[in-house]
Amino acid sequence: MIYLDHAATSPPRREVLEAVWPYLTSVTGNPSSAHEAGRAAKAGLDAARAGIAQVLGCRPGEVVLTGGGTEADNLAVTGIATASPRGRHVVVSAIEHPAVLETARALARAGFRVEEAGVDEFGVVDLEQLERLVGDGTALVSVMLANNEIGTVQPLAEVSRVCRAHGVPLHTDAVQAAGHLPLDVDALGVDALSVSAHKFGGLRGSGALFVRGPVPLEPVLHGGGQEQGRRSGTVDVAGAVGTAVALGLAEAAREEESARLRALRDRLIGGVLAEVPGARLTGHPVQRLPHHASFCFPGVGGETVLLELEAVGVVCSSGSACSAGSEDASHVLLATGLDADTARTAVRFSMGPATTGQDVDEVLRLLPLAVRAASGA
Amino acid sequence: MIYLDHAATSPPRREVLEAVWPYLTSVTGNPSSAHEAGRAAKAGLDAARAGIAQVLGCRPGEVVLTGGGTEADNLAVTGIATASPRGRHVVVSAIEHPAVLETARALARAGFRVEEAGVDEFGVVDLEQLERLVGDGTALVSVMLANNEIGTVQPLAEVSRVCRAHGVPLHTDAVQAAGHLPLDVDALGVDALSVSAHKFGGLRGSGALFVRGPVPLEPVLHGGGQEQGRRSGTVDVAGAVGTAVALGLAEAAREEESARLRALRDRLIGGVLAEVPGARLTGHPVQRLPHHASFCFPGVGGETVLLELEAVGVVCSSGSACSAGSEDASHVLLATGLDADTARTAVRFSMGPATTGQDVDEVLRLLPLAVRAASGA
Repeated sequence: MIYLDHAATSPPRREVLEAVWPYLTSVTGNPSSAHEAGRAAKAGLDAARAGIAQVLGCRPGEVVLTGGGTEADNLAVTGIATASPRGRHVVVSAIEHPAVLETARALARAGFRVEEAGVDEFGVVDLEQLERLVGDGTALVSVMLANNEIGTVQPLAEVSRVCRAHGVPLHTDAVQAAGHLPLDVDALGVDALSVSAHKFGGLRGSGALFVRGPVPLEPVLHGGGQEQGRRSGTVDVAGAVGTAVALGLAEAAREEESARLRALRDRLIGGVLAEVPGARLTGHPVQRLPHHASFCFPGVGGETVLLELEAVGVVCSSGSACSAGSEDASHVLLATGLDADTARTAVRFSMGPATTGQDVDEVLRLLPLAVRAASGA
Repeated sequence: MIYLDHAATSPPRREVLEAVWPYLTSVTGNPSSAHEAGRAAKAGLDAARAGIAQVLGCRPGEVVLTGGGTEADNLAVTGIATASPRGRHVVVSAIEHPAVLETARALARAGFRVEEAGVDEFGVVDLEQLERLVGDGTALVSVMLANNEIGTVQPLAEVSRVCRAHGVPLHTDAVQAAGHLPLDVDALGVDALSVSAHKFGGLRGSGALFVRGPVPLEPVLHGGGQEQGRRSGTVDVAGAVGTAVALGLAEAAREEESARLRALRDRLIGGVLAEVPGARLTGHPVQRLPHHASFCFPGVGGETVLLELEAVGVVCSSGSACSAGSEDASHVLLATGLDADTARTAVRFSMGPATTGQDVDEVLRLLPLAVRAASGA
């Protein structure tokens, strides 16, 4: 099987499994416990938190460990907006992941004014519109670092400039970007940033939210007061250790691996556009994730292409895994101006550490056949 | 080390690690993905959900997988109360875990009327008061199955009778009870029930909430719509598999193991009360968790006793791990009528599968010495 759905989930790295094993078998105390079993677990947790903080360029105390990327996004959006003394106005981009978009809509049902900034045909957020939307009563702006469906990387520094001019906290969903793009929170100019471990070789059910020290945060999960009261629940030390190891390894190899994947990606994009009649790249041609290539094949059922490819051993997806099998056209593709019929033909390839040039060549050989078969030709 | 803090966390069982390993190494797809990698993960997830449902005596579709017990409690309390068409009134017992109590208090800040039913000196909820509090506008009653600090098992069937007379949904936090008491939701008469895997040998960061089919539930975590829209976020298949295996093993051995632990517990309680001058049992003498023995030693610093015991290789706790090291007297012990000074002398022993009669004998030999040393005698 050629697995090209790393944007949905990327298998745990061997080094991650080795690192977490002691925390599943011997260092199994509750890190909140005051005794030696607890202290040993706490030491592992502290080291993991410090490792994550190092990659993000923040203080360890600014890292809140969560049960995944969705929880991190929920905590950022609900937690910052609810705690803000500024006002009950939230701005998000129109192509956010549902973990941000649906959370913002829940805030809207609770009385917040929520506005969505549009994007251009490449999925780049409209900075002029954003600037018009943001004001003194804005509690939070949330713009993702890179999009999961179309791979477009947002101009976060410019988004940040707009937010800082108004003193508005900026959250970025970096779930798809983590492991592939620099995450230094000062360089990005963000006040909150979410990651999900299983997107970069950590464990499922583990995530983290950076929240800049002075930003008030209302918890989403209430209870024993772990994570300095910002996220209650016994901390999954093994998960945190896995997150730190996976993030550290990805960061150490990032420049080299990104260059390698970018070359594969561009070979894939160039080949598909040349070999598949009518194929359209979705997302930005250059400002996109290094491991991500996404297309529409107007007039050809995307789901049928996926089935044809799977039959010959290539696994990829139409877009986000969350909406796999859904008949609805993607809100992301619609926001870029595609019509619903074309949007329903989406196919996404997302590569990982094990992806080779041979895999790409194989896809380039098989995809034109799959599209031809799917189009009934 | 004699580890007697299983109520804080119990190490993952070997069988759990063996069962989850394939889901960390080979069956690593996203269960929401439509392709073969996703379907294989989904098959594991479906089997895990069915296994959990079997122990709870419910339908698989009534099991919502969560990132732990705290999240399950938050989802039950906030989710049911918020979605209820009945009214904005919530009743909880005064000795609930903070995951329920603090969530109820957050609802109170959001405009709900929240009332706490008191308990008697043994920690048993006051049914007459409960009956007076519950009315037609009550959206939810939440009474834990067994208390984490004092081990008292609540008369859930009678609590249920009160709730059903008014048609009010009843949630029970079974985090401490799971693995030790029957969890059949129909026999208990509950509409929602929370468990946390790491309390019974599953993995940290995994929990589950049973919610009876017809009970409306507003999600706490918004996003991709997993778990039938009740809990968004990529499901941690390995965690779910671990939960199912641990719960199944605990249930299969429950009667035999409970009898064994109950005998050890009663030997420990009898010995402590006989050998330690002034020792008081907290919680109910009979209606208590089989693995749980908790005491106060009036006039003797509880934290000092813990340190003395740890120095000779016995690890236990003052109460909940969440509040370990806190100077505040436990809300549970205060609710049973103890004064704050006595409440601060609490020591809790909680046993597990590896606990032996020899361990208990050793504690009975060492505890009187520790208490004497701690009292400065």
